[in-house]
Amino acid sequence: MLSFASDYTEGAHEKILQRFVETNLEQLPGYGSDHYCDEAKEKIKKTIEMPEADVWFLTGGTQTNEIVVDTMLAKYEGVISAVTGHISAHEAGAVEFNGHEVLTVPGYEGKLKAQDVRNYVRNFYADENHDHMVFPGMVYISYPTEYGTIYSKNELEEIYDVCKEYNMTLFVDGARLGYGLMCKECDITIKELARLCDVFYIGGTKVGALCGEAVVFTSNNTPKHFLTSVKQHGALLAKGRLLGIQFDTLFTDNLYFEISQNAIDRAEELRAALAEKNYKFAVDSPTNQIFVVVDNDKLKKLQESVSVGFWEKYDDNNTVIRFATSWATTKEQIETVKGII
Amino acid sequence: MLSFASDYTEGAHEKILQRFVETNLEQLPGYGSDHYCDEAKEKIKKTIEMPEADVWFLTGGTQTNEIVVDTMLAKYEGVISAVTGHISAHEAGAVEFNGHEVLTVPGYEGKLKAQDVRNYVRNFYADENHDHMVFPGMVYISYPTEYGTIYSKNELEEIYDVCKEYNMTLFVDGARLGYGLMCKECDITIKELARLCDVFYIGGTKVGALCGEAVVFTSNNTPKHFLTSVKQHGALLAKGRLLGIQFDTLFTDNLYFEISQNAIDRAEELRAALAEKNYKFAVDSPTNQIFVVVDNDKLKKLQESVSVGFWEKYDDNNTVIRFATSWATTKEQIETVKGII
Amino acid sequence: MLSFASDYTEGAHEKILQRFVETNLEQLPGYGSDHYCDEAKEKIKKTIEMPEADVWFLTGGTQTNEIVVDTMLAKYEGVISAVTGHISAHEAGAVEFNGHEVLTVPGYEGKLKAQDVRNYVRNFYADENHDHMVFPGMVYISYPTEYGTIYSKNELEEIYDVCKEYNMTLFVDGARLGYGLMCKECDITIKELARLCDVFYIGGTKVGALCGEAVVFTSNNTPKHFLTSVKQHGALLAKGRLLGIQFDTLFTDNLYFEISQNAIDRAEELRAALAEKNYKFAVDSPTNQIFVVVDNDKLKKLQESVSVGFWEKYDDNNTVIRFATSWATTKEQIETVKGII
Amino acid sequence: MLSFASDYTEGAHEKILQRFVETNLEQLPGYGSDHYCDEAKEKIKKTIEMPEADVWFLTGGTQTNEIVVDTMLAKYEGVISAVTGHISAHEAGAVEFNGHEVLTVPGYEGKLKAQDVRNYVRNFYADENHDHMVFPGMVYISYPTEYGTIYSKNELEEIYDVCKEYNMTLFVDGARLGYGLMCKECDITIKELARLCDVFYIGGTKVGALCGEAVVFTSNNTPKHFLTSVKQHGALLAKGRLLGIQFDTLFTDNLYFEISQNAIDRAEELRAALAEKNYKFAVDSPTNQIFVVVDNDKLKKLQESVSVGFWEKYDDNNTVIRFATSWATTKEQIETVKGII
Repeated sequence: MLSFASDYTEGAHEKILQRFVETNLEQLPGYGSDHYCDEAKEKIKKTIEMPEADVWFLTGGTQTNEIVVDTMLAKYEGVISAVTGHISAHEAGAVEFNGHEVLTVPGYEGKLKAQDVRNYVRNFYADENHDHMVFPGMVYISYPTEYGTIYSKNELEEIYDVCKEYNMTLFVDGARLGYGLMCKECDITIKELARLCDVFYIGGTKVGALCGEAVVFTSNNTPKHFLTSVKQHGALLAKGRLLGIQFDTLFTDNLYFEISQNAIDRAEELRAALAEKNYKFAVDSPTNQIFVVVDNDKLKKLQESVSVGFWEKYDDNNTVIRFATSWATTKEQIETVKGII
Repeated sequence: MLSFASDYTEGAHEKILQRFVETNLEQLPGYGSDHYCDEAKEKIKKTIEMPEADVWFLTGGTQTNEIVVDTMLAKYEGVISAVTGHISAHEAGAVEFNGHEVLTVPGYEGKLKAQDVRNYVRNFYADENHDHMVFPGMVYISYPTEYGTIYSKNELEEIYDVCKEYNMTLFVDGARLGYGLMCKECDITIKELARLCDVFYIGGTKVGALCGEAVVFTSNNTPKHFLTSVKQHGALLAKGRLLGIQFDTLFTDNLYFEISQNAIDRAEELRAALAEKNYKFAVDSPTNQIFVVVDNDKLKKLQESVSVGFWEKYDDNNTVIRFATSWATTKEQIETVKGII
Repeated sequence: MLSFASDYTEGAHEKILQRFVETNLEQLPGYGSDHYCDEAKEKIKKTIEMPEADVWFLTGGTQTNEIVVDTMLAKYEGVISAVTGHISAHEAGAVEFNGHEVLTVPGYEGKLKAQDVRNYVRNFYADENHDHMVFPGMVYISYPTEYGTIYSKNELEEIYDVCKEYNMTLFVDGARLGYGLMCKECDITIKELARLCDVFYIGGTKVGALCGEAVVFTSNNTPKHFLTSVKQHGALLAKGRLLGIQFDTLFTDNLYFEISQNAIDRAEELRAALAEKNYKFAVDSPTNQIFVVVDNDKLKKLQESVSVGFWEKYDDNNTVIRFATSWATTKEQIETVKGII
Repeated sequence: MLSFASDYTEGAHEKILQRFVETNLEQLPGYGSDHYCDEAKEKIKKTIEMPEADVWFLTGGTQTNEIVVDTMLAKYEGVISAVTGHISAHEAGAVEFNGHEVLTVPGYEGKLKAQDVRNYVRNFYADENHDHMVFPGMVYISYPTEYGTIYSKNELEEIYDVCKEYNMTLFVDGARLGYGLMCKECDITIKELARLCDVFYIGGTKVGALCGEAVVFTSNNTPKHFLTSVKQHGALLAKGRLLGIQFDTLFTDNLYFEISQNAIDRAEELRAALAEKNYKFAVDSPTNQIFVVVDNDKLKKLQESVSVGFWEKYDDNNTVIRFATSWATTKEQIETVKGII
């Protein structure tokens, strides 16, 4: 059955597998000290035109979120997130497991607002008992968000301004970064993004890799002894090549952006087809995730031939479902699903 | 330069890469719910002839150790380990990071003794203030140990008896399990091992996989909501296929054991060559790790053509070094190193 | 200057100090094993007519909350609280510091609603991805709440029903328990309260003690090795007598309830006086905390002669302030403040 | 029955209780912001002649140890202690519960040696894999130790030199500080001690207080937002006066040192009596703890009239027991016990 259930249903881009095969018997040192990791890091730094950046490879999204949050916050600090943010709702309490509270502000189609953050922090410091509360030490946003929406450059600047004003770290979860950067609505480049935050990551798992996220510390702000902390969190791979080779491949010849573009192009086609058939869009998302409202009978029928993601109950008769395209989605698959919807 | 520095210098067994390629575009559900994971689990359960066992896949050794220890212990419990055990010395305090003390007993070439464990626990319960101390809730051993040695069946039985007597879990770290089971000195099968402990893992990272360890809970003792705990520890892969396909391949047609045998055969050849050249063995290890004492001048020369692991200073003029063979070591490589040593 | 700023401005009830003096040179064993602790526990169990209850003494409210939550929850569980609950907002992230998320539901003048809890839990279990989320394992309420309000017997029964239905522990924070039980609106006894929850505590710090809270596990549900966990949290006093003597005194001759009644009687007098002077009440609270709206000029003048608690900004010209009476408040103090307001 | 079982068998020095009574109805602000806390802090700073020191009051020893260790260490750091140190053996894993490993060096009658610490740290940094290990960030010693022994000034200087050389914090647990400083063998003053470490605490619980330890940060090194961390650990008392009044009293008119001297004088008398009766001393301890070897029959008889501490089995027929004198021990009690031993 055809699946649009998520953007991690296929394996890896074929060039990655090819590189695994080609390099397989090369004997390499462990724990990320191999030359593929080095080269991948250089390519990423070159891509963002930031030689002073510091790049690290981790395995998955929750792991990356919890390690970045835990290592960049003091023990008495928490992280501000939209109530719909991934770390708030869908990571099994991983941030709290490491001792930090997720401090929530409202989410607007997945996005938080600079003004809400400013109000939160102002109220915090205005409270004469704030020493009895969790200090806001970081703002977490995702680009794109869990709802497929993106921040405009202006919005990012406003958020980063609040962060700098109150000495908070701005952390951008880029699990689907490529799909945000390649969409039509996007008005920033990856170079600009790197300058509008303190740390971000370039998602691999959802964008062509078997696994892997590339964390970029943008301003000499890598937590001290970060490798030891990564090990302590159980996240240091013996065969660092697994991540190095993947990111080296993704950042060779613009591959990461090309395959991200594919997801966007296929999403545009699907979106147009859904609009034409008068589907109601639940969110105005410009990236690879499409949220539509379908009535439950229609949904039952749909599911006979295509897997989709259930998002939430819309009302008693309707459900919000998600179609996700990806680096792997083909034109043929879009044509097929067009015949089904 | 030829490397015998570790058993994780190459990528993965070629059959694994081949399977990645063959299955790459198959659309699969995430988080370990795909059929490759299911099949791999079935094959492992069949191999150990234990249908009631529960198998889970994690990414690396430290991660596996900390998750098993943390989820199987109560908060007031610690884990007994030889002072040389991997969790005690070389995992950046990952077990303590999760809140548990590693309670140490002496190590004898990497092994702990049942009698030392019994004495530790007896003394603990005899102490009228033991409520002010950490309760021993688990015994951790590795098979083979960090020194390449293995426990005899009789020793394992004795250790497991102590565990049962004092209601402690016995956890066997099998990061190099295949290399233990295939060595000549080994007097147990994997089926027997599974019956001599409460939980163990089958190491993939060091035995033919790019990454991955298969945790086996042997007696309906999987920690409740284990998937949630795995997620909370940042260890749940979106693309569970990465682990499922690897273990499915390793447990098809006896591959895991065959490639483990290769490491042992190559180690035997190297051990014979070293003995012939009168190298002094620092540890009497029967598995894929060989520890020899070399004088520092000789070592310097050696390192011009071969990478080895430094183990420890032996005295002012001599060093203990480690040669590790693996699933990937070839007869040609052994011949080459014979000409160098 | 006269203070109504909180209910912990004075030391301890004079009978407690007298008992300290009388018993001071008696040599007693440590860590809560002295006969005063035993006697206090017996008196509490007799008061609630529950011989099978298990009573423990801890030092303060935040400490009690974090220990009860941490020892009664599994690692993958969180605690449901009103968003205004003390553990949610004002305990410096102590619950998260111990690894548990506070799962919030709306607060209505400090109270949560059974129906909101039921909806939260239903939605949780209905979510097909709930294994990726924090399991709700406990409901936390305070009696009275941070807003001085109390639950009716019927409301408590409804909440406890939800807890039992979904196998969650109901924990009642009774930091000000006496002030709740003695107020006119209260329709339960302490005996009934003990039967409407799984664990609660009888606040001492705010009700006549220098420090101390008595935790009552009501149904053979004391966490295993609780003393060890208390020690591990740094909360086990060497001189357990400090707590034993205080609670023994408070639960002798009904003292705890008598002095609680004093706070309520004084609050009633003050409430009447405020009403007479047309103060607007911000919350309809029947216990020892009175919340009124005052304009900022009036407030400035008030503060020249009396300390009050600032609760929150009401609007640009008005502030919500809190008057708290206590076991120590005298009729003279009420007369004095009447002349000021 | 007469007890020499510990130094926390009585309540508090009578002057403390008297001050509680005198100040009881004074209305004071909470959380340590009252003037008694301020005055106590000033008196301590004056006593150590260190105006820049920063003093905080906590409730008990384990609590103090875990908070100081946790707030002064980075997450990847552990604390070096003698294997017999209180944090290593007898605090229910409180340090590990907060995520830090206790790194052990040998204990010599409770003391560690500067040279062992130096070797530990040197070996750590010499190990090429030390990034995979816990960084030594602090050295913990107690003065006096758990065995009643004390460090000489010279030994302290050597230890502090190692700490400064390797950028580690030196933390002195002074749960029984007065008994160390007042003993004949002591060659330092409290002023000198304050200059030979980075943080220490002045034990109250065992030296005349009902509870309480005064932590002194000696060099502008108070952890940031320490109050918030104290709250987060559940250790912030609402009625800070409980600690402020006690330490204010103890540091008025030299009371702390006078009552410490009493314990020492009584210990000297008891020690002389024991020596005269040919008791074998198990440890050569100059402070308020006396360790002697008694045969088990004798011990049984002794226990009919006096409580002592059991330390450890000496051999099959003999036991090491501990007599502890304290601020409360009277000459009459010594005369009585002389007639029993």
